[in-house]
Amino acid sequence: MSLTDRTKPTDVCLNTDLYELTMAQGFWESGLVGTQACFNAFFRENPFGGGFGVACGTGQIAELVENFVFDDEDVDYLASLTAPGGGPMFKPGFLEYLRGHRLDLTIDAVPEGEVVFPREPMVRVVGPIIDCQLIETALLNLVNFQTLVATKTARVVKSAEGHPVSDFGLRRAQGPDGGLAVARASYIAGASSTSNVLAGKIYGIPVFGTHAHSWVMAFSTELGAFRAFAKSSPKNCCLLLDTYDVHQGIKNAITCAKEMEEAGEHLAAVRIDSGDLAKLSKDARAAFDEAGLPYVKISVSNDLDEYTIQSLFAQGAPIDSFGVGTKLATCDPQPSLGGVYKLSAVREGESEPWRPVIKLSEQAYKRTIPGIQRVLRFYDEAGCPVGDMICQEGAEPACDEMIDILDTFRSYDLSGTPRELLARMVEHGSGTEAGAASIEQARERCKTAIMHLDAAVTRFLNPQTYPVGLELGLARLRQELSAEERRSSGRPVI
Amino acid sequence: MSLTDRTKPTDVCLNTDLYELTMAQGFWESGLVGTQACFNAFFRENPFGGGFGVACGTGQIAELVENFVFDDEDVDYLASLTAPGGGPMFKPGFLEYLRGHRLDLTIDAVPEGEVVFPREPMVRVVGPIIDCQLIETALLNLVNFQTLVATKTARVVKSAEGHPVSDFGLRRAQGPDGGLAVARASYIAGASSTSNVLAGKIYGIPVFGTHAHSWVMAFSTELGAFRAFAKSSPKNCCLLLDTYDVHQGIKNAITCAKEMEEAGEHLAAVRIDSGDLAKLSKDARAAFDEAGLPYVKISVSNDLDEYTIQSLFAQGAPIDSFGVGTKLATCDPQPSLGGVYKLSAVREGESEPWRPVIKLSEQAYKRTIPGIQRVLRFYDEAGCPVGDMICQEGAEPACDEMIDILDTFRSYDLSGTPRELLARMVEHGSGTEAGAASIEQARERCKTAIMHLDAAVTRFLNPQTYPVGLELGLARLRQELSAEERRSSGRPVI
Repeated sequence: MSLTDRTKPTDVCLNTDLYELTMAQGFWESGLVGTQACFNAFFRENPFGGGFGVACGTGQIAELVENFVFDDEDVDYLASLTAPGGGPMFKPGFLEYLRGHRLDLTIDAVPEGEVVFPREPMVRVVGPIIDCQLIETALLNLVNFQTLVATKTARVVKSAEGHPVSDFGLRRAQGPDGGLAVARASYIAGASSTSNVLAGKIYGIPVFGTHAHSWVMAFSTELGAFRAFAKSSPKNCCLLLDTYDVHQGIKNAITCAKEMEEAGEHLAAVRIDSGDLAKLSKDARAAFDEAGLPYVKISVSNDLDEYTIQSLFAQGAPIDSFGVGTKLATCDPQPSLGGVYKLSAVREGESEPWRPVIKLSEQAYKRTIPGIQRVLRFYDEAGCPVGDMICQEGAEPACDEMIDILDTFRSYDLSGTPRELLARMVEHGSGTEAGAASIEQARERCKTAIMHLDAAVTRFLNPQTYPVGLELGLARLRQELSAEERRSSGRPVI
Repeated sequence: MSLTDRTKPTDVCLNTDLYELTMAQGFWESGLVGTQACFNAFFRENPFGGGFGVACGTGQIAELVENFVFDDEDVDYLASLTAPGGGPMFKPGFLEYLRGHRLDLTIDAVPEGEVVFPREPMVRVVGPIIDCQLIETALLNLVNFQTLVATKTARVVKSAEGHPVSDFGLRRAQGPDGGLAVARASYIAGASSTSNVLAGKIYGIPVFGTHAHSWVMAFSTELGAFRAFAKSSPKNCCLLLDTYDVHQGIKNAITCAKEMEEAGEHLAAVRIDSGDLAKLSKDARAAFDEAGLPYVKISVSNDLDEYTIQSLFAQGAPIDSFGVGTKLATCDPQPSLGGVYKLSAVREGESEPWRPVIKLSEQAYKRTIPGIQRVLRFYDEAGCPVGDMICQEGAEPACDEMIDILDTFRSYDLSGTPRELLARMVEHGSGTEAGAASIEQARERCKTAIMHLDAAVTRFLNPQTYPVGLELGLARLRQELSAEERRSSGRPVI
C-alpha cells in the first residue's frame, strides 16, 4: 500500500536527502557528536519579482521536530543500503546511535503570516550539528513551498481588492500533501476558502464547491441540469454557465433563479470558467440585473493569477469572487522559492564560544552571512516596518545605520522602534507556545503585516526594495571572514 | 498531529474538491444513482513545448480505487459542514449512502512509462456517475504531476546522453508526497537514483548522496573536512569542491585522493555545485588526469535542466553525472500539465445504450471528444509508433485514414500494425495484474518507448507533431454532436 499507507507519523525522519545521513555518520565517526551548529534557512530573492515574501510552514516546525524519530523499521532500511564501492553504507554503531535518537534543537523562526525578506534568517536552527543536519531537508520541504504559496496568494488576494479568492488547486498539486500545503498556506495568506475537503477536515479551513461541467453534460438539457442542482443544493447553488454557450447559460440560469424565487430560495451565484471573462461577466451582470436578480453574484475561474485579476478589474469586470487553481498550486511562473539552509556558526560544545563561518562562491550572491543571527525589524509610529537589521545574538547594534548585504558601500539609516522578528518555536526539542500558534492567528498576522507594508513594496511592477542590512559589527565580521577564507585559498585580498 | 499523522490509508476519499461531493449528492437526489458515465483524463498540449508526454501515476490507480472508502470520521466531518445559505450542506440520507461506499469503477489507462500524446485518453474511467465523480480529483492529483515529472525527466535524461541523472529535488517539492512523486516518476522515466531516502525505502529506488557545503564549513580546513569524509565513507566518497574556491578544492581533493590510494581506497567522484560548470569541470578533469587520477568522476549540480546539460556537452564539458533538483521537482518552466477529466458518455444503466456527450466552448481547443474511446497505436516494422487513432469502443476503424482533432480538413494515412494503447487497470473496483505492474517494468517500458520514438518527435526545438487523430466514424459523431449542441443554444450551424 505504498500510495495510501506510506506515511506513518514517524516517517518524517526518512523524508530527507541521503547526504544528511552520510554526513551525520561522518560527524559521529569524526568525534563531532558534541559539536554544536547554527544553520539558517532563507531565500535569496523575493519570488515573482515582487517586493516581499510571506513566511509560512514555520508554525509546523515544532510538530516536525517532536515527531522526528528513527524507529526499527527505518533503521533496518538504512542498514540494508550498500555503498557504491561495496559494503554497507552505514555502520552498525551509527545506526544504533540513530535508533530512537531525539533532536535536541532550539529553533527560532519568523512567525507564520509575517512578511519576510531576502537573506534574513527565516528559520534559525541551533543544536548538535548532527541534529541540525538531520532536520535540514524535511524543514526546507516544509517551509520552502508554503512560503512560496503564501507569497503568491498574498499577491492574488491584493489583486482581488477585497473580493473572495478560493483555492481550487488540488488537482494540479504534487499529491495530497501538495494540495494540503496549498490550502493551508493560501488560507493563511488571505484566501477565503478552499475546494480541498481534506484541508477542511484537517485544518478547519472553510470549503467551497458546487458543480462542474460534467454535471450539466450528464443531463439531457442544461436547464434540466440547473434545475436539478438548485433542487438538491438550494442553499449552496452556484451554476456553471460555460458548458455549451455562456449566453444561453445565462438565460437558463435566469429561468432557474426565477423558479428558485418561487420556491423561496435564491440563486447565490454563477460561475464562468472559460472564454473572455471580462466581456462575459459584464454580459452576465447586465442580464441578471435586467432580470431583477441583482443579488446573483458572479464568480470566475480559468488559469487566473494576480495579473489576470488586475486586468479584469481594469476592464471594469463586475466580478464578485475568484477561483484560483493551477497558478496558485504551482506558483507559476516561479515554482520554487529557492530557499536554502546554510551553516553560520559552530562550537565544540554547549559551553564553548561560537566560531562564525562563511561560505564563499564564484557567484557573489551565494556568499553567506556568518554568526548567530537575530533580526530587528524597525517600525515607525504608525506601526509600519521601515527596515530589518540583521544583528549578532547578544550584541547590541553599534549604531542605527546598517550596511547593505550585497553592496558594502551602501548603507541605510534606520529609525523607529525595533522588535525581534524571530520567535522561539522549539526549545531543546520541545515545541513552545509560539510554535503552536493556530492558522487563524497566522492569517490575522498576515493581514496586519501586509496592511502595514508600504504600497511601493507591495506593488507588482518594479517594487521598491525593502531595506534589509547588516549591523555594523556583523558586516565587519563578514568582511573579515571572507578575507580570511580567500587567504586560505591562496587568493589575493584587497 | 496534522503534519505527521494526517494520512490514514482511507483519507484518499477526502483528498477531493468539494464539488465532487455536492455533485454526488445531486446525482443521488436526482435519481441518477444507477446512471453510468465514462470520463477521460487527458492533457491538451505536450508539456515544455516538447513532442511527447510520458504517462505516469497510472500504475497507482488500482491502489487508489481499492482504498477509496468513507469511514465514520470522514462522514462525521462532512455532516458538520454548513451550506453558505444555511443548514447542513449534506443530507443525512446521502451521507449514509457514502458511508462504506465502494467504487464500482472499471478503468483503462496508458501503462506507466509509455509515451502519450495530447487529447488521447490517458485514463478512461467507466462506472456509476457518482463513483466517476468521486474519484476525479484524487485521480488527477495522482497522474497530472507524475506525468509531468516523468516527461521532464525523459527530456533531462535524453540531454545527459547516457550519463546518470540523480533526482535531488526533495527540498523544493510540495511536501513529502511531492518529493515521493518526483522520485518515483523520475526513476520510471530514466533517472538513475534519488537523494530521497523515503522514496528509497518505499519504492526501492537506489538512493544517492554524500556531503554538503556545511560538512566542509564544520571543519577548520577544507582538507581536514575532505579527509574526515574519506575516512568515514571511503566506499561512498564524492567531495564537494565549491565551498570556498573550486581550484583550491581541486588541489585538496587530489591530496585526499592520493592519501586514499595509500589506504587502498579510491575517491569515486567530486561535485561542483556553483560557478561556470563548463570551465570548472574542464579544469577539474585536467587536474585529476594530470595527477594520475583519471578514475575520479566529475558530478555537477546547480539549477540544471535539459537545456543547461545540453549546453554543457556542447561546450565539451567532461561531466560524468548530474544532480538535478529544483527544475525536476517543480517542472520548471511549466509546473502544471493542465490535465483535465471530461465526461464523454452517459447511460441510464449498465444494460442501456451509451449516449455520447460533448462539451463546447468559446475556446475551440476546449471542445471535447465524445463517446467510449479506445486508442489504436500503429507501429511500423521496426516497432516504431507512427500514429495514434482514437476510435469508438466496439467499432472497427472505417478506414486507415484518421481526421485531425483540431482541424477537420486535415487527415493522416496510417499504416502498420495497430495495438491497443490502454490497458485495463481496474475491473469493477478491483485492481488487475496490469494495474499492479512494478516501477521497474514501467522504467523498462519507458526506455523502450522513447528509444522507438522518432528523433524528430523527441527533439527539444520545434519537435514534429506526432499524429493523433479521430477514426472517421468518431470524427463524424463529434461533428454531429457539436452541431446539435449549437442548435440547442440557438446558434447557427453551417
